[in-house]
Amino acid sequence: MFDRVWRNARLATMQGEGLGLVEDGAVAARDGRIAWVGPRAALPGPARETVDCGGAWILPGLIDCHTHLVFGGDRADEFERRLAGEDYAAILKAGGGILSTVRATRAAEEEALLAAALPRARALMAEGVTTIEVKSGYGLEREAELRQLRVARRLGAELPLAVVATLLAAHAVPPEYAGRRADYARLVAEEIVPAAAAAGLADAVDVFHDPLAFDDADATLVLEAARRHGLPAKLHGDQHADAGSAALGAHHGVLSVDHLEHANPAGLAAMAAAGGVAVLLPGATYFLRETARPDIAAMRAAGLRMAVATDFNPGSSPALSLLLMLNMACTLYRLTVVEALRGVTVNAAAALGLSDRGRLEPGLRCDLALYRIARPAELCYWIGHNPCIGRVVEGR
Amino acid sequence: MFDRVWRNARLATMQGEGLGLVEDGAVAARDGRIAWVGPRAALPGPARETVDCGGAWILPGLIDCHTHLVFGGDRADEFERRLAGEDYAAILKAGGGILSTVRATRAAEEEALLAAALPRARALMAEGVTTIEVKSGYGLEREAELRQLRVARRLGAELPLAVVATLLAAHAVPPEYAGRRADYARLVAEEIVPAAAAAGLADAVDVFHDPLAFDDADATLVLEAARRHGLPAKLHGDQHADAGSAALGAHHGVLSVDHLEHANPAGLAAMAAAGGVAVLLPGATYFLRETARPDIAAMRAAGLRMAVATDFNPGSSPALSLLLMLNMACTLYRLTVVEALRGVTVNAAAALGLSDRGRLEPGLRCDLALYRIARPAELCYWIGHNPCIGRVVEGR
Ligand SMILES: [Zn+2]
Ligand SMILES: [Zn+2]
Repeated sequence: MFDRVWRNARLATMQGEGLGLVEDGAVAARDGRIAWVGPRAALPGPARETVDCGGAWILPGLIDCHTHLVFGGDRADEFERRLAGEDYAAILKAGGGILSTVRATRAAEEEALLAAALPRARALMAEGVTTIEVKSGYGLEREAELRQLRVARRLGAELPLAVVATLLAAHAVPPEYAGRRADYARLVAEEIVPAAAAAGLADAVDVFHDPLAFDDADATLVLEAARRHGLPAKLHGDQHADAGSAALGAHHGVLSVDHLEHANPAGLAAMAAAGGVAVLLPGATYFLRETARPDIAAMRAAGLRMAVATDFNPGSSPALSLLLMLNMACTLYRLTVVEALRGVTVNAAAALGLSDRGRLEPGLRCDLALYRIARPAELCYWIGHNPCIGRVVEGR
Repeated sequence: MFDRVWRNARLATMQGEGLGLVEDGAVAARDGRIAWVGPRAALPGPARETVDCGGAWILPGLIDCHTHLVFGGDRADEFERRLAGEDYAAILKAGGGILSTVRATRAAEEEALLAAALPRARALMAEGVTTIEVKSGYGLEREAELRQLRVARRLGAELPLAVVATLLAAHAVPPEYAGRRADYARLVAEEIVPAAAAAGLADAVDVFHDPLAFDDADATLVLEAARRHGLPAKLHGDQHADAGSAALGAHHGVLSVDHLEHANPAGLAAMAAAGGVAVLLPGATYFLRETARPDIAAMRAAGLRMAVATDFNPGSSPALSLLLMLNMACTLYRLTVVEALRGVTVNAAAALGLSDRGRLEPGLRCDLALYRIARPAELCYWIGHNPCIGRVVEGR
């Protein structure tokens, strides 16, 4: 006896290499897991409850595997001032840029951070997202970083949404460490990573590996600390220049390197060999008006798995639509529809080290997204349109 | 006695040259019109009903002044095939491109066109849009063009939404006129414009003035027909090359020339002198990956009014979010926040020749959009986020 069956649906299971299409399919759940999936005609046994999907498409619940969802303030004023011609260097000097978000995040109570984050998470959920990653990185000191991670945990507790919390204390050098970058990296490695691990607040550790942020030695310190504490790792890398992030990430066996606009083919091949995932963030490319594009051809040639995420953050990607990122990945990076859709399901799960979701397959979490569309390509094609008509998390 | 008052709101009235801000403001309606607007402390007289807006921002209901909302089919399959590497020329040869939409639109019953258009209109409305323009142009023969216009009229009758219907029979040369472009232009001028005018189905006439579509002589024929029938006119112009559309539009006194990516400064100055409006369509720039940008500096220098619209259509801008177009206008074209917001209110009204909306001002239609935001810039800043919490059309 199944708990629930969804029938009269078309399925994109993501099994195999393509979309894993099943026409006239059914999905059955038991105890929050997928118990059976396949063509309706072959569906075994009865169910306590049956949902007629009316011909809708079912995909694995979408996964946004890279967000900075928890922060204080916003940067709408900065956006407005820059468009009005104000000099960015002057804005920075007056305390703008990422440090304004750090100030606002440090000053915010946990409840205020949660209240600001909830509608953002709900906006993603409304499109069929069932798992999100949330990074810290606007505290840049132990307590404020842990507070961001606690808010991430509470988001997952308060909403029907799985939340993966990633410690990104190595996001920028805090003002009190100006000129002492390596000292701050040591603080992250020796104090903040251990504290987050001890508190059980971090599922992974991330480092912004960039000429303007942390270098190889800094990143290595933090990545080794993560390993000592049994935490998987990720990098923001090769975003503004070829910093060798892809190769560094491969060397350290990270789950993913994210951005990669300037990564070189050898680094991408090393990532593929090491089993990493390339997380593509076209929202930042769009919002920053970057002309560089990740080398998709090299990723394909290397067999490197590609994920797609919002990078939602107040400075470089204030984007709360994962469906729009599908369109941007296709439009700006020329991903195929299959690549884009696998990028927010099976490959996004891999980028988070999660093997229990991202496909419609017996034994996995029963996280589903239902769409009123004629074909999966519509999820990539429409811009600013949300055809999601249902969302299932752990079978309900 | 007012019918209704909205208080505890902040107002962007669009009066004057900027946003016309009023802190702690109120708007009062009587008989569907704005009866009073200003600071709450100065609000005269009582009202039958008072709405506490809880500090929300009120803008004039947004106006999407350029859409192709009514069509049959979609082009998601074509989008998918192009990304998969299929040759566009081959797709065209196999009947793809605009002619596939023409086939699907000709084949569709009026009810089917309406059913497809309704959710699209509702998606725009959900963001605070209270007036849209809808063009025909996928019929390319009298009956099918009139059918599209009838669907536009029915949208306005069925929804709390004002709909302006524009005849765009001169959108492309239909297959049965292949090689006889001028003959088709004559048909439009001599038969289709008169028929639409006689049926009362068109509020304006539009022509696609482009090296790949209709030339000066064709456009002049159609524009003169519009004038004979008392209909204002518009042009799609200077999109793919400098076709002199801006100057041609100025010469004919059109309400607007739309696109203008390649317009020259003299043409833009002529438009400004003639009182026309430049309608900017950044969604098409984005989706077609165009590198050309409208010459915003020349528009500013000429004092040319700028509007911003979705250009929603299945081929070059499948974009159902006017708020996203605000972001794209700022991000891709570097409009200021003030320019962008005036572009979807007061200047969008001007692009449609409507003097009864687009500002919060006594005597105008009481069309309002309410947003839960801290400042108007947020409407341009967030991507794929909808902070609209209320919508008022003609006072209700
Ligand atoms: Zn990021
Ligand atoms: Zn158009």
